[in-house]
Amino acid sequence: VIVGNFLGFDIGGANTKACFVKTRKGKVVDLRVVVEYFPIWKMGKNQLPILLRNLKNRLANSDSLDAVGVTMTAELSDVYYVKREGVNHILDCVKQIFRGLPTFVLDTDGKLKTVEEARKEPLKTAAANWAATGWLVSRKIKNCIIIDVGSTTTTLIPIINGNIVVEGKTDLEKLIAGELVYTGALRTNVATIVNSVPIRRANARISSELFALSGDVYLILGNINARDYTTETADGRGKTREEALARLARVVCADVEILSEAEIVRIARYVSEEQVKQIAGALKQICSRREVSRRKNNIVAVVTGVGRRFLGEKAARKAGFKRVKDISSLFKFDVASASPCVGVGLMVGEFAEGRTIRW
Amino acid sequence: VIVGNFLGFDIGGANTKACFVKTRKGKVVDLRVVVEYFPIWKMGKNQLPILLRNLKNRLANSDSLDAVGVTMTAELSDVYYVKREGVNHILDCVKQIFRGLPTFVLDTDGKLKTVEEARKEPLKTAAANWAATGWLVSRKIKNCIIIDVGSTTTTLIPIINGNIVVEGKTDLEKLIAGELVYTGALRTNVATIVNSVPIRRANARISSELFALSGDVYLILGNINARDYTTETADGRGKTREEALARLARVVCADVEILSEAEIVRIARYVSEEQVKQIAGALKQICSRREVSRRKNNIVAVVTGVGRRFLGEKAARKAGFKRVKDISSLFKFDVASASPCVGVGLMVGEFAEGRTIRW
Repeated sequence: VIVGNFLGFDIGGANTKACFVKTRKGKVVDLRVVVEYFPIWKMGKNQLPILLRNLKNRLANSDSLDAVGVTMTAELSDVYYVKREGVNHILDCVKQIFRGLPTFVLDTDGKLKTVEEARKEPLKTAAANWAATGWLVSRKIKNCIIIDVGSTTTTLIPIINGNIVVEGKTDLEKLIAGELVYTGALRTNVATIVNSVPIRRANARISSELFALSGDVYLILGNINARDYTTETADGRGKTREEALARLARVVCADVEILSEAEIVRIARYVSEEQVKQIAGALKQICSRREVSRRKNNIVAVVTGVGRRFLGEKAARKAGFKRVKDISSLFKFDVASASPCVGVGLMVGEFAEGRTIRW
Repeated sequence: VIVGNFLGFDIGGANTKACFVKTRKGKVVDLRVVVEYFPIWKMGKNQLPILLRNLKNRLANSDSLDAVGVTMTAELSDVYYVKREGVNHILDCVKQIFRGLPTFVLDTDGKLKTVEEARKEPLKTAAANWAATGWLVSRKIKNCIIIDVGSTTTTLIPIINGNIVVEGKTDLEKLIAGELVYTGALRTNVATIVNSVPIRRANARISSELFALSGDVYLILGNINARDYTTETADGRGKTREEALARLARVVCADVEILSEAEIVRIARYVSEEQVKQIAGALKQICSRREVSRRKNNIVAVVTGVGRRFLGEKAARKAGFKRVKDISSLFKFDVASASPCVGVGLMVGEFAEGRTIRW
């Protein structure tokens, strides 16, 4: 094989990410990522094949493709009654769109399977995307904890001596182990992050409505701009700072005529600090494991995802990490916004070529 | 005046409640309440006049009406950019639908005003409905704290020597004072109540999505039935116990094939306990005020709203109240599901008749 062309898909409930990888003589020569906001519970699960076809067509010419790798988390969406139903439906869509192409699905053991094999144990295919990120980073760094802060969730993946040493393989196990913190840089309802906020000389309880998202907080604090804010807003209004201030003011049942800008910015800062603490708490939980704590001084934090700097790095520092590496510094290509789909794309490339791919 | 016919409206963001009151010689002889689930951000604010007209027509013959009383909280909805806009729009709708009828609007001082007067200080008209409940109960009980646990919010109103002695008049002030706890019996996202839940021998972090509501918790625990669950569900599915179990399982990223019924019920119990604690905490905050604490032994807790037994009473007991009264025991008519609209209906009746009305 001289040239290889591969696709990697990470099919999420709110965002689907896809990546195209071109190799020449076992080396990556092109790598492109597309992130599409596709809230499956709003769009309808019947639209999923259309989404997959569109992404495929945007990234590559079908004729030239050698293989496709798939991982998913969309099975958790409540458009499916149980995850088994979700995994099977997503596999149906994958089968339909990639007909004729060698297609492989990642499982929670980090193994690639055929679609038919994956169907036999649907729960091993559910939410395995962390295994792709773990594999990707473990190639470059042998002792680290990966902190992947996405739009919706934060995934922590410990790597020791080049091996992924997670305690949990499923979402539930990870929520218990501190390896999944269901909080993110864009889509998280502020009311799930804090119970109260400082205001004037007091603390105010907050509204439990969906009035503002973490995206509003980071837009207000200048950590993201309107273009990074890829999800819809809570009130359907725009993504200017003014509109974000109005949304965040509503979290204490107020508005921009009742609160000053400085008062709302103070709320934003507090929410951000609490979110950092939440992630740092999970990091500390992982660091307290014997196999991790005894190597603590050799372990670096590797941050990835849209919130890697303003949430991931801050949480790492708060949890006591001295060395923090941005995943962008490890790769020539832009993988930070969607590391799982890059991981599964490269995994499938190696699998299809039967050799190690360099990048 | 021999006979009086009055309407009271409590126009909320998610539910609008209306009540018809008939008096004869200054005594209530008929009282009927209608609660309509009308999420204004979904229905659109332009539908509000239609809702008001429908409720009016369902309750009474326009020709026979003597006066209408109005209170509101819908101005907080994010269909309005600021509350001032919301109050003015709602007043426009009220004016349009009750044209020709003496119409009065409650303010946060507990006073009735004309629509034109109300427009002059929109923020004094915002979220004044607690004043109607306070007025209503203070007629029967002179020293109490009212605990009104609605579908969405819980309002605490201290009454001392027959006077409403709230520290906060606006929503924001009440959130600070512990007089408004934005948590309720039906519509509250479970992810805003807890950060983790007990599962097997561990604690699991939870998903921050809108996967399950407090209504699911109380349906599972048998505190409400499908008919009481008047709001829509998080996944758009039905209101059977099985469907509620599936929704609650998803809060820890699991499903009904991963968790047993007993495990999900345990989560429900825990969420309920935490919600009780949240309300009890606010009660204790109010009880710590000098004017309340010095009378603590004489103060009874009066519970109202859809969650009055399984949340209100439990919170009162937890906060140390020995005596708890259900508002239903104070009135011959059913006022528990919508005390603010009953209050404002009776207030306007007294105002129009120029005398005390007995009930």
